[in-house]
Amino acid sequence: MGRILVLYDSGTGNTKAMAGLVAAGARKITGMTVTLREVSEASKEDILACDGIAVGSPTHTGLLSWKMKRFWDEEMHELWGKIDGKIGCAFSSSWGWGGGNELACASILAMLINFGFLVFGVPDYVDSHFTLHYGAVVAGKPMQAYEKAACSRLGERLASWVSVMADGKPVALPKKE
Amino acid sequence: MGRILVLYDSGTGNTKAMAGLVAAGARKITGMTVTLREVSEASKEDILACDGIAVGSPTHTGLLSWKMKRFWDEEMHELWGKIDGKIGCAFSSSWGWGGGNELACASILAMLINFGFLVFGVPDYVDSHFTLHYGAVVAGKPMQAYEKAACSRLGERLASWVSVMADGKPVALPKKE
Amino acid sequence: MGRILVLYDSGTGNTKAMAGLVAAGARKITGMTVTLREVSEASKEDILACDGIAVGSPTHTGLLSWKMKRFWDEEMHELWGKIDGKIGCAFSSSWGWGGGNELACASILAMLINFGFLVFGVPDYVDSHFTLHYGAVVAGKPMQAYEKAACSRLGERLASWVSVMADGKPVALPKKE
Amino acid sequence: MGRILVLYDSGTGNTKAMAGLVAAGARKITGMTVTLREVSEASKEDILACDGIAVGSPTHTGLLSWKMKRFWDEEMHELWGKIDGKIGCAFSSSWGWGGGNELACASILAMLINFGFLVFGVPDYVDSHFTLHYGAVVAGKPMQAYEKAACSRLGERLASWVSVMADGKPVALPKKE
Repeated sequence: MGRILVLYDSGTGNTKAMAGLVAAGARKITGMTVTLREVSEASKEDILACDGIAVGSPTHTGLLSWKMKRFWDEEMHELWGKIDGKIGCAFSSSWGWGGGNELACASILAMLINFGFLVFGVPDYVDSHFTLHYGAVVAGKPMQAYEKAACSRLGERLASWVSVMADGKPVALPKKE
Repeated sequence: MGRILVLYDSGTGNTKAMAGLVAAGARKITGMTVTLREVSEASKEDILACDGIAVGSPTHTGLLSWKMKRFWDEEMHELWGKIDGKIGCAFSSSWGWGGGNELACASILAMLINFGFLVFGVPDYVDSHFTLHYGAVVAGKPMQAYEKAACSRLGERLASWVSVMADGKPVALPKKE
Repeated sequence: MGRILVLYDSGTGNTKAMAGLVAAGARKITGMTVTLREVSEASKEDILACDGIAVGSPTHTGLLSWKMKRFWDEEMHELWGKIDGKIGCAFSSSWGWGGGNELACASILAMLINFGFLVFGVPDYVDSHFTLHYGAVVAGKPMQAYEKAACSRLGERLASWVSVMADGKPVALPKKE
Repeated sequence: MGRILVLYDSGTGNTKAMAGLVAAGARKITGMTVTLREVSEASKEDILACDGIAVGSPTHTGLLSWKMKRFWDEEMHELWGKIDGKIGCAFSSSWGWGGGNELACASILAMLINFGFLVFGVPDYVDSHFTLHYGAVVAGKPMQAYEKAACSRLGERLASWVSVMADGKPVALPKKE
């Protein structure tokens, strides 16, 4: 049993597309309630209500977007220090490879660590040269099967770690695609 | 029940002093087996045997030391991708404030994330102007009570998160000092 | 000859106090025009007009503030890719030591690198255990002489690097205090 | 006039291939002396002799390799604080996209900043979805034209910034390919 929140900001729709795939991945784990929320419509109650969270943002100057940052600086301010122990992870779409999407994920993870969350990346390769060690990253829109698989895998792993924390034992992961 | 490893490199003895305090903090949580290991004497079996790990290094150029890096690059190479899900955290001693100890902790966390560990920092303040949001940091040797408290608190929180993962429920934390 | 901009966001006044000290440091180098600007009053013309910039922000979740981020995401958007080669550096005030001020500086540097700026930190120690390797950092308000010296030194070094870029040779630095 | 050092570590030959391309890029700027050096054969004299440096490493756990780190921790120890003002940049090859090559570049930049160098990335896109904002990055061996162009562009920009610092005015960049 567990509740997953996929929280995202998106300008072009690319990160939104990733968010949908992350949410679909989380739903593969039995017993998960998965909520998808655009940051302008999110509230602190959404965060309070989740056990695990995937935060996605377009890559802007190698960091998360100011809109996503504002949410955590302003809306979440009063909850700081009171909600540690949730599980967190990151995803980001940049315009190009080498354009900062890994660093944007790292900035999201730093923010979640600051809130006392336990954050993770995924060692798995979803293709011969494609992985998600610090979160799922894409240049532009997720188009290729392996780009979609990376997003989905992130959601799966988030849900599986939430399950571990909730139940004290690992779930059986779905067979790798 | 849980097994904690405190793994450290130390040149001057400052990080070693931190390591001892982190280990002492972890021992405050009932049921924890805590091992303290200098990196030159550590083996992959030490990592395999732990549920949670605190990795400490002197701050060298805003990063972990090459000796600590070598351990994970070489000794741990064959275990990569096989040991995810452990809980990890970081500590570091720099020569001065503003000298990179937070960044050194961040480099350790990045490395542990790469191995698939769930990493955390601690929101708690151990004094009016002293905390450990990305791991325990000190300039020089931990001398002040709050510096020692930061190290101890890191160990406590590591042990408590291990306990959660092992048992599926949070432990009662020791009363804050 | 050179033009320095000290751009800052400040909530409590702590980062503002740092900004004034950074500006004063820059003014120690002969021939510099130094402008101090709060981010809500800054425009892209301020950036266009400078050769070197120090960007300061309160530490919020180990990153720059959303207000500072918004300025670079929104106001500066159309200048991206057209203004590379300026010299940049960072400063930040956190609530506590270990609270992310180094990481906030690193996030500012990452943003400036993204714009094609050449960024730097300062190896100098301004006291036995106080330095500014990744920018000037303080917990709370700069109160101690060495905290003020770190801010001032950052401004000095920024102005001296600008001078090098402008004139093709290093300036004689003021005698170290 | 200027002297460029391309310093690299390489396990599989992938980063070595990048290094050759970076060096070739630097040679496009008239008046540059370009030296290519594998880290095991490098000495502190190589660093002393250069005005600008590109440091390349395989991506190991989202960071530079221990061999590259050892060089700066050990061989360069006595020069620390004495050689600031050089221009620096980074490149890295990871096994896969999303595997940490940007973070490895960031770790190299953090190290060079610590030494007082002025570091940079490149806003230019070398293809519709390929850039080098934090240094040149490749997954595996540089095979595609745009991957090679990213390496070359890094070398060019390094040489051009060195030229600015040496002569006090920007060089005319070669026409973009």
